[in-house]
Amino acid sequence: MKVDGKPYRTIWLNGNGISVSVIDQTLLPHRFKIVEWRTVEDAAEGIRNMAVRGAPLIGASAGYGVALGMLRDPGDEAFQRVYELLFAARPTAVNLRWALDRMRETLLMLHPKERAAAAFRVAKKICDEDVLNCSAIGEHGRALIERAWNETGRARPVNLLTHCNAGWLATVDWGTALAPIYKAFDAGIPVHVWVDETRPRNQGASLTAWELGHHGVPHTVIVDNAGGYLMQHGQVDLCIVGSDRTTAGGDVCNKIGTYLKALAARDNQVPFYVALPLSSIDWTIDDGRSIPIESRSPQEVAMISGRTKEGVVCEVRLTPDGSAALNYAFDVTPRHLVTALITEYGAFRTIPEEMTKLRREAEQADKRQVNVFDR
Amino acid sequence: MKVDGKPYRTIWLNGNGISVSVIDQTLLPHRFKIVEWRTVEDAAEGIRNMAVRGAPLIGASAGYGVALGMLRDPGDEAFQRVYELLFAARPTAVNLRWALDRMRETLLMLHPKERAAAAFRVAKKICDEDVLNCSAIGEHGRALIERAWNETGRARPVNLLTHCNAGWLATVDWGTALAPIYKAFDAGIPVHVWVDETRPRNQGASLTAWELGHHGVPHTVIVDNAGGYLMQHGQVDLCIVGSDRTTAGGDVCNKIGTYLKALAARDNQVPFYVALPLSSIDWTIDDGRSIPIESRSPQEVAMISGRTKEGVVCEVRLTPDGSAALNYAFDVTPRHLVTALITEYGAFRTIPEEMTKLRREAEQADKRQVNVFDR
Repeated sequence: MKVDGKPYRTIWLNGNGISVSVIDQTLLPHRFKIVEWRTVEDAAEGIRNMAVRGAPLIGASAGYGVALGMLRDPGDEAFQRVYELLFAARPTAVNLRWALDRMRETLLMLHPKERAAAAFRVAKKICDEDVLNCSAIGEHGRALIERAWNETGRARPVNLLTHCNAGWLATVDWGTALAPIYKAFDAGIPVHVWVDETRPRNQGASLTAWELGHHGVPHTVIVDNAGGYLMQHGQVDLCIVGSDRTTAGGDVCNKIGTYLKALAARDNQVPFYVALPLSSIDWTIDDGRSIPIESRSPQEVAMISGRTKEGVVCEVRLTPDGSAALNYAFDVTPRHLVTALITEYGAFRTIPEEMTKLRREAEQADKRQVNVFDR
Repeated sequence: MKVDGKPYRTIWLNGNGISVSVIDQTLLPHRFKIVEWRTVEDAAEGIRNMAVRGAPLIGASAGYGVALGMLRDPGDEAFQRVYELLFAARPTAVNLRWALDRMRETLLMLHPKERAAAAFRVAKKICDEDVLNCSAIGEHGRALIERAWNETGRARPVNLLTHCNAGWLATVDWGTALAPIYKAFDAGIPVHVWVDETRPRNQGASLTAWELGHHGVPHTVIVDNAGGYLMQHGQVDLCIVGSDRTTAGGDVCNKIGTYLKALAARDNQVPFYVALPLSSIDWTIDDGRSIPIESRSPQEVAMISGRTKEGVVCEVRLTPDGSAALNYAFDVTPRHLVTALITEYGAFRTIPEEMTKLRREAEQADKRQVNVFDR
């Protein structure tokens, strides 16, 4: 999407063919800085310090990280070191492992001489596939926004509410929850987005507000407490959020606080949509209550980062010394509160039986293939 | 309640009989500072800059402010100036007007010579009545906490969740929502409090955490997004919040975000209690949806105050330049989500018919009396 009028992706191969550029997201919204990765160590550090974040972007970063590693040494042992270095950078990220395994599958079958070039091709393919998926999610979601607009008699902008950042910054381009909004905006449908600030890490107030603003989409930042009031007063036509993991049964694990907005949406008859690529569905779990929830550092609650009036970005303490804090990162929104899942294949009220069946078969086939390969 | 082991009220007459002390709440939780008011101007400034806040405490402050004014000049014209000065300090605070009218009723009937001493007596009475009311709310609420404890077989602490600050800092002592918690704690019932940080002004993370910590009550600060997750996982036995205004029908206007917690409580069969003095019931309104909601400065959303690692308290910016923000201060929780209202007269599922009738009659009598007096 656009930054200062110029289209960007979150990660790209530079013209020199031997280095990769990314946006350093740790400095947003206060500073827009592009950093260059020349080595696999640069990529691993960028994943570790969260210069890049969001499952799809982490996968793409790992792909390019492998490619940078293969440039220096394409041997089998070097590959193994590169794999381990990148995997250790963010071991809980499912997409990281997925991307690394995909690189391994392709590369280890090739002669070392061919590996670097092939790695850049596969990394590019991972990026392009992600863009296609997000774009498709965007199109299916745009249709829902357009319908909401028609329901107002095209008389006023459609008011959407989103939580956290499931925008293009979390993917390679378009985003998931924000893709429908960008597609609608680009198609001339008037939209206005309520942006939950999303404590404790404030990805809404910092990343979502920043990317919507740069693309020119009208938006207003609100505290996480405000969405219920807005829905009670008819100021939200629909909610769209992303998902970190969705169960085969349709329960949605997403940023903490998503569940509260889903409850308010239900209480006020506001449609509540979840946008996600099928790759984020966990076909092995039906009931969302069995998803383990990460408990992150209490410091994220006790402290907050912001910009002083002198322009310095720093952390300040919010809580009294001696007060404990607790920081669960996600919650689970049960399926009955979700109006529809917006995927690259369309919007579904529940995940179709057929899709579940096909996916399970594909997974078993994958496992068989990996087993053969591992021998 | 206690600060560093020593019992305090939020406002008190000093031993010299001619000055009043208050806790400067703008510096909490980072600094505990007592300031002395020697003049009505000091009191007005303290109300204006929110060194004192919370309806009951504002009322008590106005009472003592009048007394300080009468010390200097007890004449009728001076009284009028004092009234106007204090009223202008926070004109939307209902309790401010109520306390000033009460002072006027008593003082203007007296000889000017007698007014200063009488004013201190009435101000003290306003304080003592508030303490009695809060203490009674605390006792009725303690019984509910004790019942919850018994329901666990007295096997573990009772987990409570509260939003914003309806503690002793908002009143003269005890508080409203926190009074039952202090009473339970002092009675040896093991309690643990989840403290919503309560964006945007963070009264939970700063004031509630501070006062619970100083009294020794176990507590944990959480972001406003987390309560739903905790209730889904059986980690909240009951919620207690305060109320800025409750309608005769039982709808509760309280800090923004209260409604979301009430929805989560209902969805997880967690009792949701509202603690309030009867004086905060608006007998003229039945439907909470007709309460006008204050929209405060967007700067409260865009900026936040905290303490740097150098120990300096400062404001930092959270949102991108150019992103709008909106800041509704309150929301309304409909009566069907409230398990009971805990008042100084007991806990009620709905406000008893008889109480409504008596109160309406009393109000009309009051009006007649004021009319007579105004003539």
